[in-house]
Amino acid sequence: MKDQLNSGSLKIIPLGGLEQIGMNITAIEYGDSIVVIDCGLAFPEDDMLGIDFVIPDVTYLVENYSKVKGFSITHGHEDHIGAIPYVFKKLNVPIYTTKLTMTLIEKKLEEHDLLNSVKRRVVKYGQSINLGDFRIEFIKTNHSIQDAAAIAVYSPAGIIVHTGDFKVDYTPVFGDAIDLQRFAEIGKKGVLALLCDSTNADRPGFTMSEKTVGAAFERIFYEHKNQRLIIATFASNVDRVQQIINTAAKNGRKVCLEGRSMVNVIGTAVELGYIDDSGHTLIELEDLYNYPPEKVVLVTTGSQGESMAALSRMAANIHKRVKIMPGDVIVFSSHPIPGNEKAVSNVINELSDIGAEVIIEDTHVSGHACQEDIKLVYTLVKPKYAIPVHGERRHLMAQAQIAESLGIPKENILLLHTGDVLELTEDSARTIGKVQTGGILVDGLGVGDVGNIVIRDRQRLADDGIIIVVMTLERGSNALLAGPDIVSRGFVYVRESEDLMEEANRVVYDATQNCLDRSISDWSKIKGDVRDALSDFVWQRTQRRPMILPIIMEA
Amino acid sequence: MKDQLNSGSLKIIPLGGLEQIGMNITAIEYGDSIVVIDCGLAFPEDDMLGIDFVIPDVTYLVENYSKVKGFSITHGHEDHIGAIPYVFKKLNVPIYTTKLTMTLIEKKLEEHDLLNSVKRRVVKYGQSINLGDFRIEFIKTNHSIQDAAAIAVYSPAGIIVHTGDFKVDYTPVFGDAIDLQRFAEIGKKGVLALLCDSTNADRPGFTMSEKTVGAAFERIFYEHKNQRLIIATFASNVDRVQQIINTAAKNGRKVCLEGRSMVNVIGTAVELGYIDDSGHTLIELEDLYNYPPEKVVLVTTGSQGESMAALSRMAANIHKRVKIMPGDVIVFSSHPIPGNEKAVSNVINELSDIGAEVIIEDTHVSGHACQEDIKLVYTLVKPKYAIPVHGERRHLMAQAQIAESLGIPKENILLLHTGDVLELTEDSARTIGKVQTGGILVDGLGVGDVGNIVIRDRQRLADDGIIIVVMTLERGSNALLAGPDIVSRGFVYVRESEDLMEEANRVVYDATQNCLDRSISDWSKIKGDVRDALSDFVWQRTQRRPMILPIIMEA
Repeated sequence: MKDQLNSGSLKIIPLGGLEQIGMNITAIEYGDSIVVIDCGLAFPEDDMLGIDFVIPDVTYLVENYSKVKGFSITHGHEDHIGAIPYVFKKLNVPIYTTKLTMTLIEKKLEEHDLLNSVKRRVVKYGQSINLGDFRIEFIKTNHSIQDAAAIAVYSPAGIIVHTGDFKVDYTPVFGDAIDLQRFAEIGKKGVLALLCDSTNADRPGFTMSEKTVGAAFERIFYEHKNQRLIIATFASNVDRVQQIINTAAKNGRKVCLEGRSMVNVIGTAVELGYIDDSGHTLIELEDLYNYPPEKVVLVTTGSQGESMAALSRMAANIHKRVKIMPGDVIVFSSHPIPGNEKAVSNVINELSDIGAEVIIEDTHVSGHACQEDIKLVYTLVKPKYAIPVHGERRHLMAQAQIAESLGIPKENILLLHTGDVLELTEDSARTIGKVQTGGILVDGLGVGDVGNIVIRDRQRLADDGIIIVVMTLERGSNALLAGPDIVSRGFVYVRESEDLMEEANRVVYDATQNCLDRSISDWSKIKGDVRDALSDFVWQRTQRRPMILPIIMEA
Repeated sequence: MKDQLNSGSLKIIPLGGLEQIGMNITAIEYGDSIVVIDCGLAFPEDDMLGIDFVIPDVTYLVENYSKVKGFSITHGHEDHIGAIPYVFKKLNVPIYTTKLTMTLIEKKLEEHDLLNSVKRRVVKYGQSINLGDFRIEFIKTNHSIQDAAAIAVYSPAGIIVHTGDFKVDYTPVFGDAIDLQRFAEIGKKGVLALLCDSTNADRPGFTMSEKTVGAAFERIFYEHKNQRLIIATFASNVDRVQQIINTAAKNGRKVCLEGRSMVNVIGTAVELGYIDDSGHTLIELEDLYNYPPEKVVLVTTGSQGESMAALSRMAANIHKRVKIMPGDVIVFSSHPIPGNEKAVSNVINELSDIGAEVIIEDTHVSGHACQEDIKLVYTLVKPKYAIPVHGERRHLMAQAQIAESLGIPKENILLLHTGDVLELTEDSARTIGKVQTGGILVDGLGVGDVGNIVIRDRQRLADDGIIIVVMTLERGSNALLAGPDIVSRGFVYVRESEDLMEEANRVVYDATQNCLDRSISDWSKIKGDVRDALSDFVWQRTQRRPMILPIIMEA
């Protein structure tokens, strides 16, 4: 029996999350069983104009539908659960996860009318679930949202440990510390591979406890006794909000939540008992002005400078119910996510200009393990193979260096790319192929209907606008019945560029007439000539490259 | 005489630079004399799609042309000289500045065919120039480019000191330390107002000497003896390049420059004697591969992740002459400017993926004074009025707090906005009005032909693309001769959305026919109806808002 089991090989197939922060999804396969860990979305890159978010291509899972025994989810952040409603339209298998995470997933399924069709099971830390050839176990970790878990996957070929996003917090605000003992126990059994969070792998030292932020809040409350406090943070950081509630209660202030996701997530946390408001510190927004400013704290979204978030609207003075006043103290309890620095800075400038005091230091700690914490987990788990996950390439490389520094042989450190099929046996590891993967762009209700061509068009339109040339030709004779007329958008301010547009019109007319004089009846040739002539003219006069779109009609 | 002189008032009119980093330009006016300090550009905000840069509106100067006695320029960075060729097409007055700064200005004037028409005078530190009612003096400072100066403006109403961009470097790589004695001497005379750089006013402590970077280079060279070094930094940071040359020479390596602006600026610096290459350490790019990798250092542009810069092209493997190899060591001798973090990160990821080692720590110091340095200058100059300049609102506010902490009365700290006319007398300061200012967008050859409407159109086109509806109506009868046809760009991938586009066609046809059936001959009414019907349809089906552009032709 033992021989038979060991003869099989295990496959690890990351379907996202290895080239960027986000879109985390990994398939683990043995024989006829696949278990999937996480199903997240990614936020669009700067050049993905107009895109709301990106979801993973799960063609491989759809093609192996019958093997997929279930999804196990590590925690309730968008980059780990956000793609579920999209993926589950193609793939309906059970979801296993912890309580808060499941509640957040259920809200998504409900929005997409999938709540009744998807099988779900809430699991507890330590509990084991059998999924085909696998047994999976959820292990308590700490992160910037509660109910985070690492997942141990027991397979006939060996044990795989996937940390999910984690930090080591010996003194968490809510619940227990990460279950280091269990990591050690499993490590003792012998772990084939560790898939470990790389987000902070390039940061030296340890990640501070969430509780240290509480002390910073105490100080800020103390130093600003007579001012209104407005604290911006991530809606999903339930512990952070708990600490604000605690500090407010101690200092005789009420706490008011603003921002759709803040109200949603914290409301859910209160309902599930993940927030203790036994002192009735929370009040509704409409009651905000029933208290003097120095007796309230407003906790709001917008810590990333998102243009439509509550704080940004307050700063721009377009928030309907909260007006920032000189003397208000605004605390950013967050760090800008790379790419958001400028937006955050703009909000700070607007707040400064109103005369508010802005505090950006000392009230944030990361939810991800730094280098020394990563070393701790490696040392407990002692994996044979190290597979850095969750991060951009630089972060994965940084973890690879950590693993090497701990004595893991270089050939046992596996830097995979999304789509790689890694085959593991008890004593070998090799990449044996590649499956179809990629980012599917979601724009409004459209999933995948915006691809490279559309994005390239948007980029071009964004840079220099468009010039449309319309004309009507007579059927048969090809005589010019109407036009050519030109219309532009996003190119120049037409009223102040009349000469330029008139000349452009003449260029187009000449190019068209030239074709017709030569009895050219091939429309694509006419369009091409017009486009070339106009493009040259425009470049020479403006050094711009607007999209040029000739449209010929037939009457 | 004294009475008469003192009876006049001085005006300080910032024409840019108080709401952003960049576009620095300030007019100082007394009687019939105006002297202008700096003439910079700003880089576009994220939402200024397709814009190359932004220059200040100098209508006020043009309207007071006869008063303008000259421009005095503090140093040769784009945010202080970049608008000169544009402004000097409207305003031809003499330019006064130091040698390196003038050489960089001359290159710009030459590109715009203005070199022969603009009067220029190179000044030395300590030298005084009479300009109408003013006398101006250039004072040695330190910054991340050589030949930086503060400017003292002596007027009948008192002395104004403008620091320009500065840091306090007791051990500069080239030339002398900032002339603190002269600041003290002028302070002793009594200074009416200090206009001081705010860029780092929110950073505690002191700014380190440029020389400390040299030690970091020494260590990096020592630790990577057998690898090729590629160092990315700002082209304008001549001292940085000097330190690389020094370290390379000591370690038996040759230095090669790559990137257009790097070659230009450093070439100029070598010509003018601002770089010492007496050991012939610099080599041409074509000689790079004549040396073994461990014997060369490549100094390149692209430290900000700019997509067309040399390092970015190397990282993307599209650079024609330099190919990054596994084992190469890439040093970012820079900090990302806010807004560039993501781009820098992308380049680092590409480099990591090739197998290069990336070093991003410890080889950069700022060129701007931190809080303690700012306190030093205030304490030497002891101005009656404090006018923070150069920075976003948050930075100006931070300097205001510094000034207050030094005992300057709150009412003497003047937080101006661009365009404010500040009237100063020996014992009063008040804002007496506002002049026309603003950012003029430069896109290719166009200066100011892209305004709010065009930018808004570009934003909309970028988000959701455009749908064009064309039709031809018969003159007189208004009968439909051709169309309506629809064409889209940047909206959906049409080939995979045929149903949607067909339905959209039907919606447009129905809306048009409905107008014609009701004998509506008002084209704007027809266009409006078509736009509304299509817009509703598209929103309902996709939740997108593409620009909808109906075009009616007449035959």
